[in-house]
Amino acid sequence: MDRRDYAVAVVGLGSMGMGAARSCIAAGLRTYGVDINPQACRALEAAGGVAAGPDARVFADALDAVLLLVVDAAQVERVLFGEAGFAAALRPGTPVMVSATISPDDARRIHARLEAIGLRMLDAPVSGGAAKAAEGAMTVMASGPAETFEALRPLLSAVAGKVYEVGPQIGLGATVKIVHQLLAGVHIAAGAEAMALAARAGIPLDLMYDVVTHAAGNSWMFENRMPAVVSGDYTPTSAVDIFVKDMGLVTETGRALKLPLPLASTAFGMYLNASNAGYGAEADSAVIKTFAGVPLPKKDD
Amino acid sequence: MDRRDYAVAVVGLGSMGMGAARSCIAAGLRTYGVDINPQACRALEAAGGVAAGPDARVFADALDAVLLLVVDAAQVERVLFGEAGFAAALRPGTPVMVSATISPDDARRIHARLEAIGLRMLDAPVSGGAAKAAEGAMTVMASGPAETFEALRPLLSAVAGKVYEVGPQIGLGATVKIVHQLLAGVHIAAGAEAMALAARAGIPLDLMYDVVTHAAGNSWMFENRMPAVVSGDYTPTSAVDIFVKDMGLVTETGRALKLPLPLASTAFGMYLNASNAGYGAEADSAVIKTFAGVPLPKKDD
Repeated sequence: MDRRDYAVAVVGLGSMGMGAARSCIAAGLRTYGVDINPQACRALEAAGGVAAGPDARVFADALDAVLLLVVDAAQVERVLFGEAGFAAALRPGTPVMVSATISPDDARRIHARLEAIGLRMLDAPVSGGAAKAAEGAMTVMASGPAETFEALRPLLSAVAGKVYEVGPQIGLGATVKIVHQLLAGVHIAAGAEAMALAARAGIPLDLMYDVVTHAAGNSWMFENRMPAVVSGDYTPTSAVDIFVKDMGLVTETGRALKLPLPLASTAFGMYLNASNAGYGAEADSAVIKTFAGVPLPKKDD
Repeated sequence: MDRRDYAVAVVGLGSMGMGAARSCIAAGLRTYGVDINPQACRALEAAGGVAAGPDARVFADALDAVLLLVVDAAQVERVLFGEAGFAAALRPGTPVMVSATISPDDARRIHARLEAIGLRMLDAPVSGGAAKAAEGAMTVMASGPAETFEALRPLLSAVAGKVYEVGPQIGLGATVKIVHQLLAGVHIAAGAEAMALAARAGIPLDLMYDVVTHAAGNSWMFENRMPAVVSGDYTPTSAVDIFVKDMGLVTETGRALKLPLPLASTAFGMYLNASNAGYGAEADSAVIKTFAGVPLPKKDD
């Protein structure tokens, strides 16, 4: 199929979705956008999107594929099956790439609902953040039948730097993402804990950051998130409440498998505590603010 | 001073110390070795060391500098001040670079004992592992007077890729290392926890490793240590009991500062549990073996 004949709708034009949608345009796909935010919709149209708006039913029967980059399972179900849900308006067999971070059980339930009305699903969480999405270089960890991967190939090529095909069963992709989020969430909280200890002990945080990022204690998240602590600027790209959600999914998955997850459970408590203290909408590194008696850098005004 | 006139003794010819000693030889320093293991001493002499043996008093008065790469504070005090301790045999003012991972209190006590007999100390923990030590590219995080740094410059140039000068007070170097070890220890335990969850959920561990190391959940320790879990080969380069020691220092430091360290304390418990179960001498990633009911890869015989 010629790429110019391949039409895709990206649902959820946040930092990830907008980047992915622009990557689709850059790859020559006919790209539609769906979001309740009119500014995001106008931005996508200005960037070369065919059309964008809050109601995907308007163009649903023109689509060859759908990419869902919304926040959670509830949003996935609302956009597909809710009051203005567009699943029923898609052509039979349309593949839906579900890239929210959801539980394996959520993935299986959503798949069953799609299958019941003749649609296909790829259980396809993503990683890489807004920067990778903007470059068309997200990491996709996906499961589903081989034919569904094939039907989504032009979309996957446009948005992904790397596609891991985890297996045919729906739920495996979600599980791989949840294992990944366990690490991501623990690493941010560990970074905060380490920086709190350094600050309490009188170590300059910029020096501590420099040491760690040049030594074996480094993590992708430490390097990416701790500059917020060093500068005292907690403007969110990813918020504390995202990890309240994701670490909730992690601990729920452990519980379903009867596997205790001591570090993930501890980190979950730290994010809950941060959210409860009023930092839920700040950058996820604001979990450090729950350590009492620690002198932290303030943002220069 | 000409490098060929600068004589250094490396005490502790384990994987780190041997690499550092060879780096000193490669840099043209007159290099002595100290270890109770005769094979390590012969290996250093064969590599171009001037002399090596169990008793440093034999050549102590020829030394311009000492590098201590032993395991803990007890070993530092034994080699310096114990029955065959050589501190008293060093020339007045000789700088001693203490690179074991020890507590800030240990560092201050050892410094006071050295100072009392007219010697100088650099509180200089290192990171980077055996590979970086062999390349003469360890990361050194050090505190002490500027003159002590200067007196050790030929040695630091030989063994370090990067030297962080944390400040003049003895104890700051130890603290930076302890903050670093908090991250290192939590990251290994988190890697083990994540891999246990993946294994329990039926995700192939080689695929999980591949995903994480290409995504935002990665850490230096995950990338370096989890191949042991994937292959089932727990031959140690760094053992579980090293982190029993180091996480003990971390939690002790938090307690001294009245700062709760929820993740470090949890990880400490995991390492203690692993050591108690009989895995103390295995690779540190063997902390994963304390998760019950998880099918792990076995080493191919």
